[in-house]
Amino acid sequence: MSKAAIIGGGVIGGGWAARFLLNGWDVAVFDPDSQAERKIGEVLTNARRALPALYDRALPPEGRLTFHADLADAAAGADWVQESVPETLSLKHRILPAIQQAAGPEAVIGSSTSGFKPSELNASGTRAIVAHPFNPVYLLPLVELVGDPATCAKAADILRAIGMYPLVVRKEIDAHIADRLLEAVWREALWLVKDGIATTAEIDESIRMGFGIRWAQMGLFETYRIAGGEAGMAHFMAQFGPALSWPWTKLTDVPDFNDDLVDLIASQSDIQSGHLSIRDLERLRDDNVVGIIRALRRMGSGAGGVVRAHEETLADIGERDGLPVTATRQVPISWTDYNGHMNEAHYLEAASLATDRFMEMIGADAAYVASGRSYFTVENHIRYLDEIHAGDRLTITTQVLAGKGKRLHLFHRLWRGDDALAATVETMLIHTDLSTRRSSEPEGAVSESLSGWVASHAGLEAEGAGRFVGQPATGPT
Amino acid sequence: MSKAAIIGGGVIGGGWAARFLLNGWDVAVFDPDSQAERKIGEVLTNARRALPALYDRALPPEGRLTFHADLADAAAGADWVQESVPETLSLKHRILPAIQQAAGPEAVIGSSTSGFKPSELNASGTRAIVAHPFNPVYLLPLVELVGDPATCAKAADILRAIGMYPLVVRKEIDAHIADRLLEAVWREALWLVKDGIATTAEIDESIRMGFGIRWAQMGLFETYRIAGGEAGMAHFMAQFGPALSWPWTKLTDVPDFNDDLVDLIASQSDIQSGHLSIRDLERLRDDNVVGIIRALRRMGSGAGGVVRAHEETLADIGERDGLPVTATRQVPISWTDYNGHMNEAHYLEAASLATDRFMEMIGADAAYVASGRSYFTVENHIRYLDEIHAGDRLTITTQVLAGKGKRLHLFHRLWRGDDALAATVETMLIHTDLSTRRSSEPEGAVSESLSGWVASHAGLEAEGAGRFVGQPATGPT
Repeated sequence: MSKAAIIGGGVIGGGWAARFLLNGWDVAVFDPDSQAERKIGEVLTNARRALPALYDRALPPEGRLTFHADLADAAAGADWVQESVPETLSLKHRILPAIQQAAGPEAVIGSSTSGFKPSELNASGTRAIVAHPFNPVYLLPLVELVGDPATCAKAADILRAIGMYPLVVRKEIDAHIADRLLEAVWREALWLVKDGIATTAEIDESIRMGFGIRWAQMGLFETYRIAGGEAGMAHFMAQFGPALSWPWTKLTDVPDFNDDLVDLIASQSDIQSGHLSIRDLERLRDDNVVGIIRALRRMGSGAGGVVRAHEETLADIGERDGLPVTATRQVPISWTDYNGHMNEAHYLEAASLATDRFMEMIGADAAYVASGRSYFTVENHIRYLDEIHAGDRLTITTQVLAGKGKRLHLFHRLWRGDDALAATVETMLIHTDLSTRRSSEPEGAVSESLSGWVASHAGLEAEGAGRFVGQPATGPT
Repeated sequence: MSKAAIIGGGVIGGGWAARFLLNGWDVAVFDPDSQAERKIGEVLTNARRALPALYDRALPPEGRLTFHADLADAAAGADWVQESVPETLSLKHRILPAIQQAAGPEAVIGSSTSGFKPSELNASGTRAIVAHPFNPVYLLPLVELVGDPATCAKAADILRAIGMYPLVVRKEIDAHIADRLLEAVWREALWLVKDGIATTAEIDESIRMGFGIRWAQMGLFETYRIAGGEAGMAHFMAQFGPALSWPWTKLTDVPDFNDDLVDLIASQSDIQSGHLSIRDLERLRDDNVVGIIRALRRMGSGAGGVVRAHEETLADIGERDGLPVTATRQVPISWTDYNGHMNEAHYLEAASLATDRFMEMIGADAAYVASGRSYFTVENHIRYLDEIHAGDRLTITTQVLAGKGKRLHLFHRLWRGDDALAATVETMLIHTDLSTRRSSEPEGAVSESLSGWVASHAGLEAEGAGRFVGQPATGPT
């Protein structure tokens, strides 16, 4: 069992503790703050909810968490000691020698400092490296490593094993890399607020509705490589580089924009991304942007909220073969799998959304759910009749097979394009009281609406319903 | 039918054309470039693939796309004319009067300029507003609007109706808002490359593995509000504000860091986010970060690639009740729905991943698929026996009911925690030749492996298999 010692248990130290613990390490915490245990407990609660949710496999069993009144107790026998005390050099100069004295010679000693260089941290002869993480430490993979190359290499292996992304910074510099970029944005944002150009909310929207979505997946240079098009990075630089001398840079010193700089950037960009054509990069970017915005739909944050609001304005969809159309949509690439077609689970996702739409039609809508009643699905039978591909247009019709009392029996047909029946989904639902989670009778208006649907669908055929898995087809098909 | 005229059909003009067209507008393009039609066609191909994939409803039927050799033809009768010619003021001063002459008095005239202010654009008396979008225009919602307030308000309504997010910039300023932030990062990044601190690839990783993921959903200030913790934004400013005078800002002028600035930021942040506690904000952030990273898993980009690589190292999972365990996982919050429990489709998603795992166990793995063979699911029957919640641990076992020739019949049990049987998923698969997409016999080694599983599972009960939807339980349950 590996052991990590966490020296300083604030938001960052707590995040480190959670990252190690949830990856099976024992964690020993030293923090003189009497609230440290409570604070780390709160971070852990968040981390237990979020970190395992990234994975389709279980993380190893959690390690053991202990709190120590003595720094040396916490650090003894640790494979990694992480210092996350406040950002004051004199304090770090007191803590790091104490850590080094208590830890074994093989222990990695990392500092979470966002600003100080290893040469500053180790002025008194200690051997700490910078291991600078990003909040929330239990979710974001980046750790900037700065310092002795052999120690950084060893630290990188450990960080990869706990699911992090070590970025070894080859030359020490104030604030490493990412915080230099953040500091530049922070300065500019403060000017914008101070000068009354924009509020904090407007600045945040200018980020998350636009380039923030690009940066979550590609960063700065690869994004601009695409903007340069087939002509490439040098073209982009030629087009936008001159902006460096435009008036809005008057507040700052800028690098000379000469051929050497253009060549340096263009050649590094070729090494980074040259194996992909601009077309490949565009599709990769688009697939990721679609995936990110679809992920943001759930909470309605940023661009996800924009899409949801817009979707509400899209028209309703009529009838087909005497049945209500409960969905029309285009199949996103993220719904396909390694077989090159829509994955089996997304047939059901599409049908589930059609069920939701039908619920709205009978009055079992969001307000009904808010009043404490809903329908729960108890059975689904899906017959996959044809393949569906990314970009295909799906239309779903919903037939009511039965809808009396607590039980509701639906039969969805998934049409690909105009006339290919790609699947049927037979669904049994039970009306449920959301407070007791037990079956209950629906409200009168919902019952009445359902009776109308049952009557209007009576006598319609439902070829494929009522079958068990593997049941031979009856009659000619 | 509304009509948009696109003046200048490069990447940005093409993106505007796609955004309007896919939202049902007729689009008329003027661009003297003989390649304009081809270039816009390429942007449209990307847009048709990506934009509708954001929505769970169909967009309206596409409008009509026309190309015109004459600017006045394109602009005549348009409700919106968008100028996206190269970023040269003298060129814009030639084009904008021509647009104004051809367009009706009610038409919105927007300029895609990233740098110029309306007062500069309209020096010769035109009435254009800045409508500055972000690439890819067909996916990213942000449009910065600058200029006459009434025109901006009218433009904002139109933009919302085509799914965009208008941000009205109240004071004109060089480069508006977002590009000021981008320019600040660009300058800093150029220094880092020029000084040999980091390569373009390292800088991109420092963004997309860390703060880029934060910014896709919250932006700068709301993120820092969380970092300030319960003590709030003023506390954050007190903690990090002094960094403004640290050495790494020596290259630039900085705003005076005084109480007025702190109060201004803190009060704006309260208005923006004060309705949510720090705990609420943390959970919102975490849910979004999890959603984004899960979205990035698909293409393996950035943090999604880190999670996939780490997941490969997680141990395999043994046996239960004499059956192979084909999945153990924690349920992510994004798998739950408005009923407060795991949505029906994700029961199948979990089972589908278990099927994939079983495929690996019998040798029908990625290499087998790459060789042109796979199994396709033709039927699923899911019985929902108990609710599953976010954070619950799922274990799935897989039983082989039959596995001779082309057909493979599986029975998954989904266990919640240690002992609650939450669902069964009965799956029928057919072995398929991926080139012909027709059924075929599996490879010998796969057949043999399956025979072994069939023999070892022979005689095990499979309560719940072979049933049709709504079939009454037989015997005591």
